[in-house]
Amino acid sequence: MAVYTEVDDDELNAFVARYDIGKLLSCKGIAEGVENSNFLLRTEKNNYILTLYEKRVNPDDLPFFLGLMDHLASKGIECPTPIHDRAGAALSRLAGRPAAMVSFLDGVSVRRPMPRHCAEVGEALAAFHLAGQDFAIRRANALNVHGWRPLYEASAARADEVASGLREELARELDMLEAQWPDDLPSGVIHADLFPDNVFFIGERLSGLIDFYFACNDAFAYDLGICLNAWCFEGDGAFNITKARALLQAYAAKRPLTKDEFDALPLLARGSAMRFLLTRLYDWLNAPVGALVKPKNPIEYLRRLRFHRDVASPSAYGLDR
Amino acid sequence: MAVYTEVDDDELNAFVARYDIGKLLSCKGIAEGVENSNFLLRTEKNNYILTLYEKRVNPDDLPFFLGLMDHLASKGIECPTPIHDRAGAALSRLAGRPAAMVSFLDGVSVRRPMPRHCAEVGEALAAFHLAGQDFAIRRANALNVHGWRPLYEASAARADEVASGLREELARELDMLEAQWPDDLPSGVIHADLFPDNVFFIGERLSGLIDFYFACNDAFAYDLGICLNAWCFEGDGAFNITKARALLQAYAAKRPLTKDEFDALPLLARGSAMRFLLTRLYDWLNAPVGALVKPKNPIEYLRRLRFHRDVASPSAYGLDR
Repeated sequence: MAVYTEVDDDELNAFVARYDIGKLLSCKGIAEGVENSNFLLRTEKNNYILTLYEKRVNPDDLPFFLGLMDHLASKGIECPTPIHDRAGAALSRLAGRPAAMVSFLDGVSVRRPMPRHCAEVGEALAAFHLAGQDFAIRRANALNVHGWRPLYEASAARADEVASGLREELARELDMLEAQWPDDLPSGVIHADLFPDNVFFIGERLSGLIDFYFACNDAFAYDLGICLNAWCFEGDGAFNITKARALLQAYAAKRPLTKDEFDALPLLARGSAMRFLLTRLYDWLNAPVGALVKPKNPIEYLRRLRFHRDVASPSAYGLDR
Repeated sequence: MAVYTEVDDDELNAFVARYDIGKLLSCKGIAEGVENSNFLLRTEKNNYILTLYEKRVNPDDLPFFLGLMDHLASKGIECPTPIHDRAGAALSRLAGRPAAMVSFLDGVSVRRPMPRHCAEVGEALAAFHLAGQDFAIRRANALNVHGWRPLYEASAARADEVASGLREELARELDMLEAQWPDDLPSGVIHADLFPDNVFFIGERLSGLIDFYFACNDAFAYDLGICLNAWCFEGDGAFNITKARALLQAYAAKRPLTKDEFDALPLLARGSAMRFLLTRLYDWLNAPVGALVKPKNPIEYLRRLRFHRDVASPSAYGLDR
């Protein structure tokens, strides 16, 4: 839930006039996204999403994010496409903030994904990985394995407030993950946050991917690990192998996994669980009183981490190689 | 800023299917309105606003609000029009709450109204008053002169926290207003909350009125008093007679004021200032820590009240009779 910045109507009209999109008809702040202020704009030509980038986004990353969306759209990936002003710029300023306008993408995110949704996601993720391969700009993953220890240290002293023994368990995991993390898997641009919130469907058909603000360069199969956690566990914490199989098979049909990637799946999924566990733990321990956004319970990700730790072989995810 | 209730995609699809509006393409929670949860829906046919009525709205009032919008639309007033389901009902339920869908109205509210905007508002208010005259349902104004004393009593003990001497000043005002309030002015359905937020413009043309959730039966000229306060004061608190004249002249050109209405304007504007001063004072003193919505400073309305108290004659508002 966002919209932190209010935009003056005069300033907005002047902003819109710099684009070839017709006259402004309507502008509604939308309660979506936690990091930025988003507005749904209607003009004589079309609908658009206007984003004002708030403090948590590094302005130096914006050329990567906007360039990536342009690149993906040019490769036929369904995603919001930056609208360029008459001078050709996608990045602008409004209300004292970096601002960009993108095309409006139809679709609704699913609350309870079914296996058919997971298959669509697997296929779309593979297409995304392939499409990003010749994208020229690079962005390091600030939340990769090397970023986990500082995050852990920021929460360690109070981790046991959330679950008894958590500090010790995380320390052991972190040692293991740092020691065994693979650094030679096929890599490229990954989405890194492809949760159900960020995938739109119309009926059962995937209509597009959104929110590329965690996208970065990292191992493709790590993105699969993230998706396994995000799409293939039930509300009660149980792993759903049917969903995982659907996701992985659809992915592999479009971009076959190497043997190393296949073998690394349990470790990558475990690392991905660690990454979300650590950021959720930090947010949980540091949520301001009366915060707008209720932090997500980190325990859900501790359970996922333990599941992947106990997995005997990659075939536990439903994919044979 | 609202959206208190999240709506499940399956439930939403089932809801939409009951209307003749095509398949659901998109649903965004919008950060608008304080009382209810609002969503912008796109379907194959059109755009709509879906409202879930939260606790602060009395469900018994919904037939009045929805019926009024239907009635106004049938009279050619530009306003959101309730969408009826295939069984003919405008009021439904979704996510455990009363729910209604209305047509999407293009337009943007103006932050700094100019005299030409005020003239448009005056004309639209008169048209609204005339159109509502034969609306069959009635709704009492819970915030009329008889509702002010309980509001005052709820804040009196702490009023001086906001401004020294405020309790005493409000008590004197209230005595005077109760004693002199006219009860025989021409009456009908009034909007009762026609602030700039609730009026849409496309360019300089008024495109519609929204938010009828304070509408009720009361004196037409009291609605004018509300608009004088809402539209004709500058950011620094100064009264702008050019705006007031524009608003009143445009109103009177469509619905001429009686002599009693004209003479009562200072008192009605003063009472309207009292009404918003009292609700803002209450909200100011009772805002929860970390509240989503920052309460509006009541002092602004104390200054307006004093302005109207000092007005020597109704012609101070720029209208001759």
